[in-house]
Amino acid sequence: MNNNFIGVFDSGLGGLTVVKSLIETMPSENIIYFGDIAHVPYGTRSREQITEYVMQDVSFLQKFSIKAMVIACNTADSIARKRVEESCSVPVFGVVEPAARYAAETTKNNKIGVIATNATVNSGAYKTAIEKYNPHAQVYAVACPLLVPLVEEGRFRRGDEVTERVVAEYLEPLKRAGIDTLVLGCTHYPLLMDIIGDAVPGVNIINSGETAARLVKTELEAKGIENRENPNPVRRYFVNDSKDEFEKHASLFMGRSLETAVEQVEV
Amino acid sequence: MNNNFIGVFDSGLGGLTVVKSLIETMPSENIIYFGDIAHVPYGTRSREQITEYVMQDVSFLQKFSIKAMVIACNTADSIARKRVEESCSVPVFGVVEPAARYAAETTKNNKIGVIATNATVNSGAYKTAIEKYNPHAQVYAVACPLLVPLVEEGRFRRGDEVTERVVAEYLEPLKRAGIDTLVLGCTHYPLLMDIIGDAVPGVNIINSGETAARLVKTELEAKGIENRENPNPVRRYFVNDSKDEFEKHASLFMGRSLETAVEQVEV
Repeated sequence: MNNNFIGVFDSGLGGLTVVKSLIETMPSENIIYFGDIAHVPYGTRSREQITEYVMQDVSFLQKFSIKAMVIACNTADSIARKRVEESCSVPVFGVVEPAARYAAETTKNNKIGVIATNATVNSGAYKTAIEKYNPHAQVYAVACPLLVPLVEEGRFRRGDEVTERVVAEYLEPLKRAGIDTLVLGCTHYPLLMDIIGDAVPGVNIINSGETAARLVKTELEAKGIENRENPNPVRRYFVNDSKDEFEKHASLFMGRSLETAVEQVEV
Repeated sequence: MNNNFIGVFDSGLGGLTVVKSLIETMPSENIIYFGDIAHVPYGTRSREQITEYVMQDVSFLQKFSIKAMVIACNTADSIARKRVEESCSVPVFGVVEPAARYAAETTKNNKIGVIATNATVNSGAYKTAIEKYNPHAQVYAVACPLLVPLVEEGRFRRGDEVTERVVAEYLEPLKRAGIDTLVLGCTHYPLLMDIIGDAVPGVNIINSGETAARLVKTELEAKGIENRENPNPVRRYFVNDSKDEFEKHASLFMGRSLETAVEQVEV
């Protein structure tokens, strides 16, 4: 039993879908979250800039007693994973590797789609990781830059005709390619699960936050540093700009209200 | 005659539509531009954060010999105009005031629409400025947060059904209100002129970059610091993240290729 925090960071709100999965998978763990909302979005920036911002996120979380670091942002994980590992003495978990592995191992026809930000797609991280676990896999990666703004505007529900149309447009080439598996390679996309599911019926959709949470659980248990009995788990949420918008939208990403007030810090 | 630069800044690309208007209006002026692409977009951030970034932009341009400062971003102008004026010894021009004044003075039915970012609309800057010049005006301001991402994805041309639909949705309440004048309160929106014009036929559409450029010309001439004869005007463009994307999209905003290479700096 280990009461230290699982540290989690993202460029903003999206990583809260990963926190949601972590809490569902490991309800007794203490979790500390940092959302770099002063620099959101990461997905359209350069590798150098993303890396610089990620290292600031990591430094902030390292001020706390953490036993694991979770990069809850596909863009950050795709670009800066190695730098995060080099600077951390605790285990580092990303969202790309577990989702890529699960897709690689469960596809039946070896045709896997990945939807993500520009930066994640351009990094090739998913393609590389999927091919490592399944050399026969064909990976079709599509950048979907409008989906994050649509989700952040709250336009993710079935019946929003603009979002349905944009999603259908992005997924068209993947449908044509005949994929049987689709990785949601951005932590905002789980909110679009209904619309995406309607657009590619019969396709197995993988939520990178869920596969990451399962891996974190397995590894913490293997190391004997999990927290099984903790009647009052501590959850803290930090951001580096006005918390109003973050608090307003957080429950959408978490699927429920936050347990505590969001704290605003200078990072 | 004065060879000093007109300094122009924006959160990213949008301000280039203002540069375009400045060049059309004053082809002999030397211009220096800074795009804060490491922190784009401003329109969804807090007032404090926007002000901090704006002051960094101003400090950068103050390293050069400038004779005027142009805030080529409606969000920055709405939020931080006063702070910029306090820190500048040269005349400061924004985009809000000239567009608001022109709308206030040319409307026939006193019903004026404004479309802009969340931050600009929430600031109330357009409403205040329009009412100052026309106390009878009714101002209908609508935040259009999806338009900047759509423009940045290159989806601003007639025939893009998603953009046409989004624009029609945002403009619907303004049409219903019976506006005869519409201010494009974001420097990205001039690229959407065709689609917006189709959505509100017969409405007088005001480009805040154009009205700003006319005011700059008038004021520089009034002060005797204009540059009328300059066969080789100098134009310099600076950004603080990878210049590749900026260079790729710049010609869309400028209506032609940049005269010189973009320079990347640390700001």
